[in-house]
Amino acid sequence: MRPPVSPEAPAADGGVAVVIGAGGAIGAALLRGLLDDPRYPRVVAFARRPADLPEGLAAAGYLDLEDEASIEAAAALAAPVGTVRLVICATGLLHDQSIDPEKHWSAIRAASMARAFAVNATGPALVARAFLPLLPRAGRSVFAALSARVGSIEDNRRGGWYAYRASKAALNMLLKNFAIELARRAPGAICVGLHPGTVDSALSRPFQAGVPAAQLFSPAQSAAHLLRVLDGLGPRHSGGVYAWDGERVPP
Amino acid sequence: MRPPVSPEAPAADGGVAVVIGAGGAIGAALLRGLLDDPRYPRVVAFARRPADLPEGLAAAGYLDLEDEASIEAAAALAAPVGTVRLVICATGLLHDQSIDPEKHWSAIRAASMARAFAVNATGPALVARAFLPLLPRAGRSVFAALSARVGSIEDNRRGGWYAYRASKAALNMLLKNFAIELARRAPGAICVGLHPGTVDSALSRPFQAGVPAAQLFSPAQSAAHLLRVLDGLGPRHSGGVYAWDGERVPP
Repeated sequence: MRPPVSPEAPAADGGVAVVIGAGGAIGAALLRGLLDDPRYPRVVAFARRPADLPEGLAAAGYLDLEDEASIEAAAALAAPVGTVRLVICATGLLHDQSIDPEKHWSAIRAASMARAFAVNATGPALVARAFLPLLPRAGRSVFAALSARVGSIEDNRRGGWYAYRASKAALNMLLKNFAIELARRAPGAICVGLHPGTVDSALSRPFQAGVPAAQLFSPAQSAAHLLRVLDGLGPRHSGGVYAWDGERVPP
Repeated sequence: MRPPVSPEAPAADGGVAVVIGAGGAIGAALLRGLLDDPRYPRVVAFARRPADLPEGLAAAGYLDLEDEASIEAAAALAAPVGTVRLVICATGLLHDQSIDPEKHWSAIRAASMARAFAVNATGPALVARAFLPLLPRAGRSVFAALSARVGSIEDNRRGGWYAYRASKAALNMLLKNFAIELARRAPGAICVGLHPGTVDSALSRPFQAGVPAAQLFSPAQSAAHLLRVLDGLGPRHSGGVYAWDGERVPP
């Protein structure tokens, strides 16, 4: 494993950590990691099925990326808990009953494209719009969203997965945009995308065949990687996408 | 003006040129340029209001990016005209009664995002899905779509314009994806995005204040630039975005 991009002083002031999409494989593992982290005595989590969330949370509630009001309500629930130092949007849609990653351009469908954009780009943007104003103007804070290496235009050698790739490229642009605006109001704040690698989850399960075993991570491994990467980031990294090993993913 | 990226032998075999969005400022100027170009004895054009299209076309018809059936019908109309050597998707939406470019994240709206993605990313993807199969498997051919420098994640310094930037980044990814798949079936084919610069059009009019006069192009100037850039591209340029002066726009 490569070293993280560079060591930074992590926040140690008892801030609040927020996980959105905490019912997913990676989101649930991130949440467990944060609940065990003494730097975040208060952890808040949101999921489409909040009843499944673990105990020990300072607040919890319903959030669905396609339900704008639920995102605003979630931010209103998190705001009074304390100073928010970390927000992770651990959501993402590669396939479901309405989407199947396109092997060829003939499989492109307007409805699948719209849904991928709604869930993978617009949804996290609405989360950022609602939660970035909760980050403090002073000191270090982090907003991170799950992106993916296949959202890198420069890195794209194989093609395919039109809707997913396009929606993650759009997300990466949005994160860059948020980072620029965020830097003006909170110079110590960081806004990044994360590439978790291939994680053994419902999202990746149909696509794991070509992945070497050593590169197929458990959700817990992946969460540990990502939290370590976040610890290594500073404001100069804001706007970029970073892989599980700390390496920057090009746009 | 910089030289084009490199000189390539332009097609000279009497191919068909197709302009989609030929009713817009840049599209209409591209269409006039192609009608004057002896290399394309047959020119086909599509627009939302085909009655406004000029005379002298080999075929013309209705196409609306948000009307998938109209895109398929347009391709079916173009197919029998001859060997398609050039397709330009000269569409793009920055603002209309439903969209206003966001100065701050607080202005992000799910509906504006959805519309920008539909028109600027999914629409051109549906055009590519319908028209790329018309390109010949042998010889040089070009598919180009209007992109924009503000769709470059790397080049983004100012932020803002969330929906527009994200939709153009998504488009740039889609063009890269199409280029990869296209290279497998037609090694001489090229698929690129184009940045026209700031063109004096309804799209840019509210945003021209900061643009030096020498960098505000008439639609005719812009069309001449873009056609010259396309003439300079070869298969190795496929998948990229090129500015009016031939310079590559980074992802």
